[in-house]
Amino acid sequence: MKITPSLPKGTRDFGPDELRKRNYIFHVIRSVFEKYGFQPLETPAMEKLETLEGKYGEEGDKLLFRILNSGDFLKDVPPEDLNSRLSSKISHLISEKGLRYDLTIPFARYVVQHQHEITFPFKRYQIQPVWRADRPQKGRYREFYQCDADVIGSDSLLNEVELILIYDEVFDRLKMQDVSIKINNRKILVGIAEKNKIADKLASFTIALDKLDKIGADEVKKELAERGIAPDSLEAVIKVKNLNASEKISFLEKYLDDSETGKAGLNEIKYLLAQASACAKLEFDITLARGLDYYTGTIFEVKANPARAGQMGSIGGGGRYDNLTGVFGLPGVSGVGISFGVERIYDVMEELKLFETINLSANTTRALFINFGGEAETKAFQYLQQLRANDIPTEIYPSAEKMKKQIGYADKKGIPYAIFVGEEELKNNTLQIKKLSTGEQTRHSIEEIIVLLKK
Amino acid sequence: MKITPSLPKGTRDFGPDELRKRNYIFHVIRSVFEKYGFQPLETPAMEKLETLEGKYGEEGDKLLFRILNSGDFLKDVPPEDLNSRLSSKISHLISEKGLRYDLTIPFARYVVQHQHEITFPFKRYQIQPVWRADRPQKGRYREFYQCDADVIGSDSLLNEVELILIYDEVFDRLKMQDVSIKINNRKILVGIAEKNKIADKLASFTIALDKLDKIGADEVKKELAERGIAPDSLEAVIKVKNLNASEKISFLEKYLDDSETGKAGLNEIKYLLAQASACAKLEFDITLARGLDYYTGTIFEVKANPARAGQMGSIGGGGRYDNLTGVFGLPGVSGVGISFGVERIYDVMEELKLFETINLSANTTRALFINFGGEAETKAFQYLQQLRANDIPTEIYPSAEKMKKQIGYADKKGIPYAIFVGEEELKNNTLQIKKLSTGEQTRHSIEEIIVLLKK
Repeated sequence: MKITPSLPKGTRDFGPDELRKRNYIFHVIRSVFEKYGFQPLETPAMEKLETLEGKYGEEGDKLLFRILNSGDFLKDVPPEDLNSRLSSKISHLISEKGLRYDLTIPFARYVVQHQHEITFPFKRYQIQPVWRADRPQKGRYREFYQCDADVIGSDSLLNEVELILIYDEVFDRLKMQDVSIKINNRKILVGIAEKNKIADKLASFTIALDKLDKIGADEVKKELAERGIAPDSLEAVIKVKNLNASEKISFLEKYLDDSETGKAGLNEIKYLLAQASACAKLEFDITLARGLDYYTGTIFEVKANPARAGQMGSIGGGGRYDNLTGVFGLPGVSGVGISFGVERIYDVMEELKLFETINLSANTTRALFINFGGEAETKAFQYLQQLRANDIPTEIYPSAEKMKKQIGYADKKGIPYAIFVGEEELKNNTLQIKKLSTGEQTRHSIEEIIVLLKK
Repeated sequence: MKITPSLPKGTRDFGPDELRKRNYIFHVIRSVFEKYGFQPLETPAMEKLETLEGKYGEEGDKLLFRILNSGDFLKDVPPEDLNSRLSSKISHLISEKGLRYDLTIPFARYVVQHQHEITFPFKRYQIQPVWRADRPQKGRYREFYQCDADVIGSDSLLNEVELILIYDEVFDRLKMQDVSIKINNRKILVGIAEKNKIADKLASFTIALDKLDKIGADEVKKELAERGIAPDSLEAVIKVKNLNASEKISFLEKYLDDSETGKAGLNEIKYLLAQASACAKLEFDITLARGLDYYTGTIFEVKANPARAGQMGSIGGGGRYDNLTGVFGLPGVSGVGISFGVERIYDVMEELKLFETINLSANTTRALFINFGGEAETKAFQYLQQLRANDIPTEIYPSAEKMKKQIGYADKKGIPYAIFVGEEELKNNTLQIKKLSTGEQTRHSIEEIIVLLKK
């Protein structure tokens, strides 16, 4: 007995239906990126481990997929190392390459490697899969797509405005109106930390703050206390959270008056809110912290409204970083970027039934010629070429099977029309066309059929 | 001193210019596949090693990229195995997954796994990278794209005709007129082998025959002799090779008259030549053998004319197989498929300068707003939104740098127009637009600019 073949856990096949929906999302995002002057980049799936390691924290290093060296990979491993049986040590002796963990580090590597050919500011987008050896669970896969746009080599806040407009336009085009584009600024959080005399504990403060939405103020305060931070350091944040948009600004103007960094961050937020005032989805959220250490200015996060889209969490995020390429020897290059969480966007769109309103079958087969064999097949095949010469996607069933089977094929594939060229039609040079959804059947010349199917 | 980061050997980055050209090729192929009713499929980069191993011969197994198991991968390796230091043995104990080596085996795996959901005949296309640990050299990479279309679950020759028409249309659209679509049939080669009483040595015969183009008849005969095959077994092939199209058929009709298999193959070839007679690129080539063992009927190969395109060899190939899914426990399913060699097609198109005739910048930035800062920046940014609302890809330089730097950015990025909103223009609500290729400069209203740039 043969065992049915299967996939490695956490990986997926994408059949035609799902793929058309996914490709529609990619197409929309790509179109908007290009409209804003972002250029495509693709990097290889494999990077040297020296490029990847140490960039994602200790946990990240564990989640890297490592590629076994080719050939006799044990040849040069010293016996004493092998006998140590230390996987972490030996892995470095038998593996030099790993699979891409995100698109940011390969991008930084590319920028440094090609710094003399690139015209800055460099606006690139990248849509490719990444791999992480995470424990698979609902909505978390070991292979998934990332979808990033970054501007590197410019510290102008206009870039932030552009990225907000890109979020706005993409979600408009996807008909996902009910999303919030949240912004905050790391410098404001620095200012608040300064005021509370916890500037040296900023990382712990932001990590705890990041959980406010999920676990509530009491739990966050508990966590702060555990991390040696006075729980009332959170008070200003909670106060601001509950104010309306203009009150937030005036409160913080007073509160941060003696923090240069805090004031600078607030001024950046005010600029963005003014410049992108046409974007109704935009919202200044003081509780937005984002864990990643490398953000230094604006931070972004996009959330689907939970009331309608389930607890989907973040469907996009990003921010400004001042030293992304420093790890590869090119310091002082400022950049800002955003990312779309395509897997979650897909789930939200499914749940809101948004794909139903989109014509995903624009390029799919419009009509199937039913195959009656012999002379009729030859004639049908000629007609088929005429339709295709008019760029109408068309098929013929490859053999003269029973009618039911042929119509069943059209049905299952979602082909809207069947075309019959039988004895009668051969005689008078016509074709019968049947609309499969209604059963309506009419007889036409090939010229009429072309007009009908071009619609 | 920092070391400049680099890529693993045999892998490549694709920057914007190259990527646009590659994506154009993919777009053309994808459009034609869809027009003929083929549906997209994507499979994961990683497959279980049990799916991949033993499918590509001994050499292929060596070229698989294997993924190291996560975590403490040595934990369950018996000490005696580890001490054996046998890489080939130990690799199976510390690695369970490998990177996709081609798209055919993952497709066969998918078909068997989803056989109860699939409507046959199943026409799928797949455009994804594959990985092989080959020694890198000019034109051979360790990561490269494959581009396949297959029909599975139908033995009708109409499928072969359709695949020939797809080749024809794709190369027409790519303006690669000077290619030959060569066909042959394994059954004809079986017939010739029968006639020469070497039916038991068919594999050796076809492997040697495959080299006829490259090394010439004398060398092939030498090789046949070494393989224990009488050199004059090649005579019929050489005779047919030098005949014109109709003579080939009539010679083989007589020659294969007492071989049922040979006659069946010849009838298939005659059918294809008749049905696809409109395709001027089509050519029956008796010397076409293709090494792969699993082909059982028609075989295809596309070649770019060497006089114009260098010694590019094959830019496409495929054939009919009767038992692709048998290895996964689903026997007796016939299929036929073709593949495009995109990396080589790219090289031929570059050499023939075909990309120069194609508008690759359809979606790239049409105009750059020069940034003068302050009030002028604000106004320019408003105009920018108006252009984008009309779906005109536009950018603004993110900060008020020196004019030379901003124009240089537009030049290097191939942006055709620069737009100026200075003092004068602010006063009278106009914009100046400069065509960068000619230096021609004119003043317009925003409405006129929209019309001008939409062209």
